[in-house]
Amino acid sequence: MSFTKRIISIQKKSNSLLCVGLDTDQKKIPSHLQSKKSGMLEFNKQIINATKDFACAYKINFAFYEALGKEGWTIVEKTRASIPSSIITIADAKRGDIGNSSAYYANAILNEMGFDSITVAPYMGKDSVQPFLQWENKGVFLLALTSNEGALDFQYKKIGKKRLFEEVVAQSQQWTDKQNLGFVVGATKTKDIQSVRKLAPAAPFLVPGVGTQGGNIDDVIKYGCTNDGFGVVINASRSVLYASSGKDFADVAGKETERLKNEINSYRKKYFTAG
Amino acid sequence: MSFTKRIISIQKKSNSLLCVGLDTDQKKIPSHLQSKKSGMLEFNKQIINATKDFACAYKINFAFYEALGKEGWTIVEKTRASIPSSIITIADAKRGDIGNSSAYYANAILNEMGFDSITVAPYMGKDSVQPFLQWENKGVFLLALTSNEGALDFQYKKIGKKRLFEEVVAQSQQWTDKQNLGFVVGATKTKDIQSVRKLAPAAPFLVPGVGTQGGNIDDVIKYGCTNDGFGVVINASRSVLYASSGKDFADVAGKETERLKNEINSYRKKYFTAG
Repeated sequence: MSFTKRIISIQKKSNSLLCVGLDTDQKKIPSHLQSKKSGMLEFNKQIINATKDFACAYKINFAFYEALGKEGWTIVEKTRASIPSSIITIADAKRGDIGNSSAYYANAILNEMGFDSITVAPYMGKDSVQPFLQWENKGVFLLALTSNEGALDFQYKKIGKKRLFEEVVAQSQQWTDKQNLGFVVGATKTKDIQSVRKLAPAAPFLVPGVGTQGGNIDDVIKYGCTNDGFGVVINASRSVLYASSGKDFADVAGKETERLKNEINSYRKKYFTAG
Repeated sequence: MSFTKRIISIQKKSNSLLCVGLDTDQKKIPSHLQSKKSGMLEFNKQIINATKDFACAYKINFAFYEALGKEGWTIVEKTRASIPSSIITIADAKRGDIGNSSAYYANAILNEMGFDSITVAPYMGKDSVQPFLQWENKGVFLLALTSNEGALDFQYKKIGKKRLFEEVVAQSQQWTDKQNLGFVVGATKTKDIQSVRKLAPAAPFLVPGVGTQGGNIDDVIKYGCTNDGFGVVINASRSVLYASSGKDFADVAGKETERLKNEINSYRKKYFTAG
């Protein structure tokens, strides 16, 4: 089954478009876990256990784990292994290099570590992205329009009639025929999600920027979903992970995840009859 | 001392513009080392020992080490530690994320692991790059014009009067006043090195693509050097590391490095009286 079909399938089964972002910051986890060597892994496992019925995906932000060196690498591996296999895993690693090097990253993260997908930067073009697209059932979320302020520096620049992010979306779709290419489209740029959806009618979108960064869920659903009300994977990280700083952190994170899932679905009902 | 000044200083002391790229491929190292668990690290140490008198920098390509998971991480740390502190170390990791995440990558690679510099992707703009620029004596090589075929996909696209890579170079120089920003400019795009040099008269350039990728050293020196014949860091990886596949690999790599250093210097003499 293609990566795109796998996402839609899990979104239908779980009735959820929500992705939980495991941007786990050792300094922000509850104090009773900070002192333990295995604290970060235990935190992740409890978060996963409390949220897995409400999520279609988990995104692991590699920056937070590389900060711990080789121990961080082990935590990534063990965290990924503790995610139920039915749920999509996203390595938020933003890799991308010349083909020879990208092939190593692709093999390490998608094959050896077993992630279902990875975020990739587009600047180096086709041969830097294609090694990540070699498996039909594994996917790429290519950076198109990011949620940060710096998105304005280059992504919005006009190239002929298109803006750079639109050029990235238009060109990159020629790089694979395996239905395994999606895009990162920030929730803070809601009107422009519509432009990306027009250029890529069926591609899955990974949408960060809801929650702490202030993105609007109503607009993300209205402008981002495919015609049947699926196809956007809305990520929430900090607002879920640190909903409580006490020993009840997992319970509270579970409740916040369920609340977010239902909020997202309320907008799906508003715009899509099938929602 | 600023990162840019440190590079010029080591280039003057070593009389070398050559960087040895430790793109060490476990499957390509000599067979007597392939069978040993510590083979890759031993290979790197011997290469460093044989080439250190002819190099101004070492570049460690993270892709080849991440392929080995957490063991690879340990090899990176130990390899970096075995490079003499006078020689510039470059983490070729091509990171870049929203500011919060980039700050973690920057701390992990430049601070904890102790690299002098890192390659960073520009697509996400200012706040994704600035965390890597916080230390005056540590630097960034921002991807401008890469050596691969995919460079043609976006980097050459016209934005107003500039091409994207020129826009990246022009804008990014406003992001730091610490003289610690350099650029990656592929040796396979020699005429365009001149455009980047005009936009950034004093910035250090990391120039991959000489050797296996076929870049022309004469043109790199002619168009890339600063006015006094310094400022380009010319990387060679495969042509040095695998110059011999036998037990004499380190000796042969040393000789090839010395030959390359001298070849580079012959062009410096041709174009720069101080060379």
